[in-house]
Amino acid sequence: MTKSPNSVSSSYKTHLSSEDKPWIEIQERVRYSETDKMGVAHNKNYLEWFELGRTEFCRQKGIPYKQIEQKGYYLVVGEAFCRYRKPLRYDEEFIIRIVLEQVAPKKVVFKYALLTKEERKIVASGYTVHVVTNARAEVCSLPPEILEKIKA
Amino acid sequence: MTKSPNSVSSSYKTHLSSEDKPWIEIQERVRYSETDKMGVAHNKNYLEWFELGRTEFCRQKGIPYKQIEQKGYYLVVGEAFCRYRKPLRYDEEFIIRIVLEQVAPKKVVFKYALLTKEERKIVASGYTVHVVTNARAEVCSLPPEILEKIKA
Amino acid sequence: MTKSPNSVSSSYKTHLSSEDKPWIEIQERVRYSETDKMGVAHNKNYLEWFELGRTEFCRQKGIPYKQIEQKGYYLVVGEAFCRYRKPLRYDEEFIIRIVLEQVAPKKVVFKYALLTKEERKIVASGYTVHVVTNARAEVCSLPPEILEKIKA
Amino acid sequence: MTKSPNSVSSSYKTHLSSEDKPWIEIQERVRYSETDKMGVAHNKNYLEWFELGRTEFCRQKGIPYKQIEQKGYYLVVGEAFCRYRKPLRYDEEFIIRIVLEQVAPKKVVFKYALLTKEERKIVASGYTVHVVTNARAEVCSLPPEILEKIKA
Repeated sequence: MTKSPNSVSSSYKTHLSSEDKPWIEIQERVRYSETDKMGVAHNKNYLEWFELGRTEFCRQKGIPYKQIEQKGYYLVVGEAFCRYRKPLRYDEEFIIRIVLEQVAPKKVVFKYALLTKEERKIVASGYTVHVVTNARAEVCSLPPEILEKIKA
Repeated sequence: MTKSPNSVSSSYKTHLSSEDKPWIEIQERVRYSETDKMGVAHNKNYLEWFELGRTEFCRQKGIPYKQIEQKGYYLVVGEAFCRYRKPLRYDEEFIIRIVLEQVAPKKVVFKYALLTKEERKIVASGYTVHVVTNARAEVCSLPPEILEKIKA
Repeated sequence: MTKSPNSVSSSYKTHLSSEDKPWIEIQERVRYSETDKMGVAHNKNYLEWFELGRTEFCRQKGIPYKQIEQKGYYLVVGEAFCRYRKPLRYDEEFIIRIVLEQVAPKKVVFKYALLTKEERKIVASGYTVHVVTNARAEVCSLPPEILEKIKA
Repeated sequence: MTKSPNSVSSSYKTHLSSEDKPWIEIQERVRYSETDKMGVAHNKNYLEWFELGRTEFCRQKGIPYKQIEQKGYYLVVGEAFCRYRKPLRYDEEFIIRIVLEQVAPKKVVFKYALLTKEERKIVASGYTVHVVTNARAEVCSLPPEILEKIKA
């Protein structure tokens, strides 16, 4: 039923590791509504936090994601993976680190790490694979002016 | 930052494929609040739907997840993966199919497929890897009476 | 900062009480992700459950809300109120009862009660006031064919 | 089914209006996952934003809500009301203004206004009524040391 995320895995070997790539970081805090009865942040929120990271990544590259959509392009999530290592608790501050792992006209891969604020211990890590589409949900290519900014 | 989910991938080769395993299915409908401005269900909801599937799987095996927690055991999510193939729209009915891919005293792996209701086309697929812990978040083993029921 | 919901309150005195109006009921179950660290369903989910109720109300009246939007009309939420009486817990089944309290071409008011499944005790109650708009978010009137069905 | 929120409404007349009370403000941004297919923030998120406001209010008063719970007290939501005036869109920055409208050992009322960032136009307003309970969900009184800080 599931496909192993080969494209991403293989890129670990053949390309520079993402640790060598520039990243950006943002800081967030766990909301009360994001906890569950286990007393920790619920697993689905991590995908929301990854998305916050992408939004800030694009903004810092000078091309807010809102503008990408206004120009008629969508980075549709094709795959999402998260590995949960340590729980996050209500009101805890944490860091979201975002790396652009791979970018091609029709495909973008982001990688993420969540870190504790003080000790910078890894709380979670993951990636999302995006397919570029137009407003009619057809696969298409990002125009050069957007590609250049994201890669910059 | 991310680890390729080897344990799961390798199990595809050495074990019977999950297509041969018994599955259970439940039916759900996309809530308005689960859509986003792209007009389709937001990616984080799939992890919530996987969880609904696990809840029903345990119930049908005669050991509701609520009871597992009441006995002091937790199936903490260690990894989650989802591949999104087709969008789901507001009010659309769909099927969640759940398979118990792997079960050991300290680890449980579920696999999921989301299908359109009528044509049974695959909308999404994924898996979650769970670590068994006690109420103090220490890794422990599921007792035989729970293991037997889940495996049955 | 807040306006007391006079229109709704006054309708209690001058109109038939909603207890005399026909209602519809649907059954739901608390999702794990809907609980918070207090161990009970988080307050924001009640607004989502109210919405599930509206969706089913319209469907049972023969005019699914999806179709209302496809015809270019939106029932935008202008006010929402909830009174929380008893907590709901993970996996608990409950009833959502929906009443059409008031309907006019440009305004619709729904009232809701959440009940325990077995003993029918009130868990929560509330209302939502909706303004009718077109796709450009301008206030407009529902056409007679939709009004008739909702009122029926 | 619903009770008109008299206690709050009547307090408007007999007490100083909340506009005279000190407020605190925080700034937030609409997340992509908080939008719905109408293209604007979904109504349930406003209750989550009110909660973010309460969390910051308590922190700024020197008694983080996390500590209140650690001491064994819970501010359980008994009523929530929101009036939605203008939509909020993806990535839009907005202000949450929080006022402590009423405080008694067993009951706390917060009022909220959401404002556009630049022009300070009111986007939404509302209130929440809280009942003080202990860990066994029994109504109880906040101890003086917490009361003093919240009122300060």
